Amino acid sequence: MIKVGILGATGYAGAECIRLLLGHPGFEITCVVSKTFTGKKISDVYPSLTNICDLVCDPLDYDIITKKADCFVTALPHAASQKAVFNLISAGKKVVDLSADYRYSSASLYEETYGLPHLYPELLETAVYGLPELNRDKIKKTNLTANPGCYPTCSILGLAPLLANDLIETDSININAVSGVSGAGRKESLAYSYCETDGNFAPYKITGHRHTTEIEEQLSLIASKPIMVGFTPHLAPLKRGMSATIYTKAKKPVSSAELIRIYNMYYKNEVFVRIKSEGTVPSVKSVAGTNFADITPIYDERLNRIIVVSAIDNLGKGAASQAVQNLNLMNGYSETDGLLSAGLYI
Amino acid sequence: MIKVGILGATGYAGAECIRLLLGHPGFEITCVVSKTFTGKKISDVYPSLTNICDLVCDPLDYDIITKKADCFVTALPHAASQKAVFNLISAGKKVVDLSADYRYSSASLYEETYGLPHLYPELLETAVYGLPELNRDKIKKTNLTANPGCYPTCSILGLAPLLANDLIETDSININAVSGVSGAGRKESLAYSYCETDGNFAPYKITGHRHTTEIEEQLSLIASKPIMVGFTPHLAPLKRGMSATIYTKAKKPVSSAELIRIYNMYYKNEVFVRIKSEGTVPSVKSVAGTNFADITPIYDERLNRIIVVSAIDNLGKGAASQAVQNLNLMNGYSETDGLLSAGLYI
Amino acid sequence: MIKVGILGATGYAGAECIRLLLGHPGFEITCVVSKTFTGKKISDVYPSLTNICDLVCDPLDYDIITKKADCFVTALPHAASQKAVFNLISAGKKVVDLSADYRYSSASLYEETYGLPHLYPELLETAVYGLPELNRDKIKKTNLTANPGCYPTCSILGLAPLLANDLIETDSININAVSGVSGAGRKESLAYSYCETDGNFAPYKITGHRHTTEIEEQLSLIASKPIMVGFTPHLAPLKRGMSATIYTKAKKPVSSAELIRIYNMYYKNEVFVRIKSEGTVPSVKSVAGTNFADITPIYDERLNRIIVVSAIDNLGKGAASQAVQNLNLMNGYSETDGLLSAGLYI
Amino acid sequence: MIKVGILGATGYAGAECIRLLLGHPGFEITCVVSKTFTGKKISDVYPSLTNICDLVCDPLDYDIITKKADCFVTALPHAASQKAVFNLISAGKKVVDLSADYRYSSASLYEETYGLPHLYPELLETAVYGLPELNRDKIKKTNLTANPGCYPTCSILGLAPLLANDLIETDSININAVSGVSGAGRKESLAYSYCETDGNFAPYKITGHRHTTEIEEQLSLIASKPIMVGFTPHLAPLKRGMSATIYTKAKKPVSSAELIRIYNMYYKNEVFVRIKSEGTVPSVKSVAGTNFADITPIYDERLNRIIVVSAIDNLGKGAASQAVQNLNLMNGYSETDGLLSAGLYI
Repeated sequence: MIKVGILGATGYAGAECIRLLLGHPGFEITCVVSKTFTGKKISDVYPSLTNICDLVCDPLDYDIITKKADCFVTALPHAASQKAVFNLISAGKKVVDLSADYRYSSASLYEETYGLPHLYPELLETAVYGLPELNRDKIKKTNLTANPGCYPTCSILGLAPLLANDLIETDSININAVSGVSGAGRKESLAYSYCETDGNFAPYKITGHRHTTEIEEQLSLIASKPIMVGFTPHLAPLKRGMSATIYTKAKKPVSSAELIRIYNMYYKNEVFVRIKSEGTVPSVKSVAGTNFADITPIYDERLNRIIVVSAIDNLGKGAASQAVQNLNLMNGYSETDGLLSAGLYI
Repeated sequence: MIKVGILGATGYAGAECIRLLLGHPGFEITCVVSKTFTGKKISDVYPSLTNICDLVCDPLDYDIITKKADCFVTALPHAASQKAVFNLISAGKKVVDLSADYRYSSASLYEETYGLPHLYPELLETAVYGLPELNRDKIKKTNLTANPGCYPTCSILGLAPLLANDLIETDSININAVSGVSGAGRKESLAYSYCETDGNFAPYKITGHRHTTEIEEQLSLIASKPIMVGFTPHLAPLKRGMSATIYTKAKKPVSSAELIRIYNMYYKNEVFVRIKSEGTVPSVKSVAGTNFADITPIYDERLNRIIVVSAIDNLGKGAASQAVQNLNLMNGYSETDGLLSAGLYI
Repeated sequence: MIKVGILGATGYAGAECIRLLLGHPGFEITCVVSKTFTGKKISDVYPSLTNICDLVCDPLDYDIITKKADCFVTALPHAASQKAVFNLISAGKKVVDLSADYRYSSASLYEETYGLPHLYPELLETAVYGLPELNRDKIKKTNLTANPGCYPTCSILGLAPLLANDLIETDSININAVSGVSGAGRKESLAYSYCETDGNFAPYKITGHRHTTEIEEQLSLIASKPIMVGFTPHLAPLKRGMSATIYTKAKKPVSSAELIRIYNMYYKNEVFVRIKSEGTVPSVKSVAGTNFADITPIYDERLNRIIVVSAIDNLGKGAASQAVQNLNLMNGYSETDGLLSAGLYI
Repeated sequence: MIKVGILGATGYAGAECIRLLLGHPGFEITCVVSKTFTGKKISDVYPSLTNICDLVCDPLDYDIITKKADCFVTALPHAASQKAVFNLISAGKKVVDLSADYRYSSASLYEETYGLPHLYPELLETAVYGLPELNRDKIKKTNLTANPGCYPTCSILGLAPLLANDLIETDSININAVSGVSGAGRKESLAYSYCETDGNFAPYKITGHRHTTEIEEQLSLIASKPIMVGFTPHLAPLKRGMSATIYTKAKKPVSSAELIRIYNMYYKNEVFVRIKSEGTVPSVKSVAGTNFADITPIYDERLNRIIVVSAIDNLGKGAASQAVQNLNLMNGYSETDGLLSAGLYI
C-alpha cells in the first residue's frame, strides 16, 4: 500500500479524491490537509465519511506531512499550489497537482493567463500534462503531474481524433461547454447559493475563461501547429457533470459512421473513453461519479461540419478520478485500479 | 396611489414585496432601502426587474425616506427592526414589519425567545399580529402590523378551526413542517449553497425553533388557554414553498368529510384559504407565488387523530403577500387587491 | 372585454396562457378546451387555479366553442392545429396558433420539415409569423397569427440586429441553445421523469431539429438572402427557461460597446427586448415568467467573432406571453397590456 | 465467486443492485432479467454501465435463468414476486425478494394490506424479514429473505432501541417520513415528471400507506406486544434519499446524551447504523449511495418527547444495498463485503 496525502482535502475535488482512494486496492490515505479545518475530522466536514474515513485534518506543515505519505494530491487553488508542489517535490515526493500552476509548458503563458508570476519555472519543465490518453508514457516517468482542467479534459479528448487525423479546419474550433456548480468549489457564495442557482442557466466569462489557453496549448501540440479556439463556458443547475458541444468545419465530407469508426480506432486502447454509437448522445448522467469520457462525433451534412459531444464528470475525469488515474500510472499500478465502479445513474 | 417604501428591499422577502406591489392598483413604490446596495438600482440586484422597476436604493436615512412614502414594509432581520419601526411609527407612518420584533404581546416572551432586550415595549401594545384571518378588524385600525412568521402562518391557519371548534386535545399538537431555502434569506452561505442543498433533506433546530413560542401564543389566544406545541422544521430543496403536516388527537371520532365541512364553514369568508376536497392534498406547487393557504383536514380512524395538511408560499402568505394583504387592510383597500394573480405552477 | 377561448388548455403553454389572460385587463377567458380533461374543471388539473379560474373544460366541439369566444389561442400539437385553425378561421374568429402548422410561408417547407401534408395551404398565405418585433403591422391586421417557436424566437431576436446591419458573415451562424423541460410538454414520459432529468444535461436532435428551417426562413427574410444556420438544442434541468449562445463571424472588427449601441438602437421601441449592458449576461432566471427577451452581444477580439447571448422563458416569450402580445396587437390593445408583471426571480 | 441473477434488473432498485454487485469481491452477476428490455443490453438501458456491465437482458424464463445463477435478487412489483420467488426457491435457489410479498408473517395481514390473495402462504413461514440488525442469525440460515420496505427500514431502525429499552409509551409513535422520487420506480408517469415534481413537496396516502402494517408488525415483535403507529409519507424533490422524523412520548425524562448512549449501546456491533453525536442531524446527503442508516435521538424536555431522526438511501439501505447485505449473510460472506464505499456527497 502506497501512502497518499491530500492537500485541500475538504474541497469538493479533494473530497472526491478521498472517496476514490478509499476504494483503491493500492493506496492508503494517511494524511489529509486543510487550513480551515485543521484538527477536525474529515468526517465532521463530510459526514458521509463517518466510520469510513475519520482522519483528522493536518495543518499545512511540510515537516509533518512529508513524513506521513509518499505521494500527494494537491487540490489547492491556483497560486497556492506553486509553493506547495515545490516543497513536496523538493522533499522527494510524487505529486499530482489539480491546480493550473504546472499545466503550461512556459511560465509566460501561465503568467499571461493567470496574471501572476510563476516562482518555479524550472519545475514546469519536469511537470507533465496529466492527460493519460495523450501523455501516458511521460506520466509514468514523472514525479510531477499537472492534472488537466475539467474543460480542457472534456474538450481535448473530444477534439484529439479530429486533429490527429487532419479532418477539420483548425481555425474553426468552437467549444460550447456546460459545467455543474461543484466546479466553482466549496465556499460561501451568493452566486452559487441554492436560490440563485436552481432554475437558472447562463454563460459566464464569455470570451475570457482561463482554460482557453490551456486547451489551445494542448491542441496545438496535437496538431503540431498553433491553434486558437472559441471557448464559452456555461453554468447549469447540476451538482456535478460537464458537457461540451464542439463545432468544427470538416475538411471534406465524411459520414457520422466513419467518424465513429475513426474515434473508436483512435481510442481503441483507452478504457476511459467510450465512443457512443450513432444516434446515441453522451449525457452527464452516464458519466457522473466515474472516470469516463463519453464522446460522439456527428457529421452535419447540411453545413459540412463535424460536431463532437463530450461528457465527463467535472469532479471525476475532470479532476479527482483523473488524478487517481495519474497516481496509478506514476506508481506502476494498473491504470484502471480503483476506477471502474459504476457511476450513480440516479 | 399610496406611496410605499420598503426597507430591506433586496432580501428575498423585500423583493417579493416589490414584485407584488408593482402589480397593485393602489400602491406606488417610491422608496427602496438597502444598506448593502445603497446607490445601486434595485434592477441591478434583481435583473428581472429591469425596465419594470429601476428605483435606486436609498440608504437607511430616516430624514430622506420618511419624506418619500406614507406606508412602509420593513423586511429587516429581527433586532434591526426594533428601531426602524419605532422611527417610522414616530414619524407618523404606517408600518408592516416582517421581522419577529413586534409579534409578541409581551416583551418578556420576545426576550426569552430571541435572547435580546426589547427597547420599545410600549409599541408592542399597539402592534397587531398580522394574520388577517384572525385579526382583520384590528389590523384595519392599527398603524403597526407585525407580519406573522411563515411557519406560524402555515400552522395557525391549519389549526384554528380545530381549536375554535374544540375538536382536539390541546396538549396533543405536533407540527412537522418543511420550508424552501429562500426562508433562510439572501446571503453568502455554505450551508445554503447549491451543492450542499440540492439532493439533501433534513430537520433543523429540532426542539428549539423560535417560531414555536409565536405559534403557541397565537394558538393560546384562539383556544383561550395556554397551549404548547411540538414544532419541528425541515429544509427541503425548494426555492420557495412551505408545507406543514400537523398531527393532533381528536376529542371524539369524526369523519374527514365533516372536518372539511367545518373548515369550509370556519373560513367561509376567507378568499385566501382554500380547503381542499377529500382525497386531494395541498401541495407547495399549488400555492407558489400566491397568497393562498391550501389546507385539508383528514381524520385518521385507526388512531383517532386529526391530521391537517397546510401549504403556503413562505415568501407569499408567509411573508410578502401577507404584508400586502395587511397593507390593503390598513389603507382601506379591498383585501384582495393585487393578490389574485395565478401562481406559477411550472 | 373580449372573449377568448384556449384549445389545448391543459398543456403547459395553454395553462400559461390562462395564467396571463387572467391578469389581463381586456380579455376574459370564456372557454377552455381539452380532449383529455373534458368535463373536468381546469382547476382540478392545475390546483393553483382554484378559486381563480374554475372553468370546466369543453370538448373540441366547434359548434359549442365558437359560440363562446371571439378570439382563440390554439395550443395543440402540430398537425392537430391544421384543422382546428381552419375551423376557427372559417367561423370568423381571430386565432393565435402556437403550433408550427402555420409558421411557414410555403406548404412545401412545412411538409419537408414535418413530414406530413399541409391541408390548408391557402391559409398559409394569410397567416402572419407572429414575432411582433419584426411583423407588428402585419399582425395588427391579420386574423391568423402563427406564434413562433421558442427556439426561433430566442434565436431570431438575438440575430436580427446583426443581419439588419450587415455585421456578420451570413454563412457563419451557429446557434447553441438550451431549453427547460416544459418545452417537451405535459405528458407521461420516462425521458422527462424527475429521476432521469434531474442532474442530467445533454444535446438532442443534434443536426435535425425542426426549428432549424423556421429560424432559417425568418433570418433569410431579414437578410434578404438565403441563410442556413447551425442549430443544436440541449435539455437542461430547468422547469422553464431558454438560453441561446449564438456564434457568428464578424465582417469587420467592432467593440462590444458599439454592438450594444447598435442593439439598443435596433430595439429602441421594443419594450420586451432588454439589451444588457456590457459585462452583464442574460440569464434564464431574469426572464422566467415574463415576456422579456434579454440579449447581449459580445465582440470576441481574438477570433473576430460576435457572440450573442439571448434568454427568454420558453413558456413566455417562447409561447404563451408572446401569444398574448399578439392577441393585444390583433385586437387593438396596447401591446404591453397584461404583460408587465415582474417575473418570479425565486 | 457466487453467481447472482437479478429479476427486474432495469428498475431503479435492480440497477442499484447491479451497481453494488459489480463492486463486490464475492459475487458475479451472471443474469439480468427484464420483460420490457429482453434482448437488449443492460448498458443500453443504463448507459452509465457501458463497458462495465454489458449483459443482455434475459426473458423471465425460469428454465434459462435457473441454470445461470445460484442466488437471485427479485426486484419485481408486489404480486409479481409471489410466483417468481416460488419458482426460484423450488429450483433450489437462494432468494432476496425486494417486494412486499414475503415480508409478513401471515398471509392474512398481507392480503388485508395489499388487497390480493397470497398463493404461497407456506413460503411465508420460511421467509425471514431481512433486517440484519434484528434478524441476522435467521437470515444466515434461510434461503428466502424478504427485504424490508424503505420506510420500514428507516422507521424500525430508528425506533428499535426505544422499544427494546422500554423508554416510550408504545401507543404514541408518530412517523413523519419523506422519500425521494426513485421510490416510485422507473416508469412513464405524469405525476413523477420533472415539471410536476421539481419545486413541489406534499404528503401522500396520508392515513393509508401499505408500509404501515409492515412497520407495525415488526415493532410489535420487538416490543412483544401489539403496536400501532401513525405513519405519513411525503414526496420531496430528491432523486434518492429518505428521512424520517419520529415522534414519541417518553415514559420518563431522559437526556439526549443518555439517549445517544443507549442507541450507541444498542447498535454497538452494527457497522451500518451510525448514531450521530448530540447537536448533529442525520441528512439525506450523508447516506446517499450507501448502506448506512444515520440516526439520532433527541429528548424534547418541554413536552417530554423523544424525537428520533433517521436517514437512509431509499435505494440503498432501503432496497439494494440491504439486499446485498442479506446476500452476504446468506452466503457466508462478511456482512460488509462490497458495502463500505463512500457515498457521493455531491
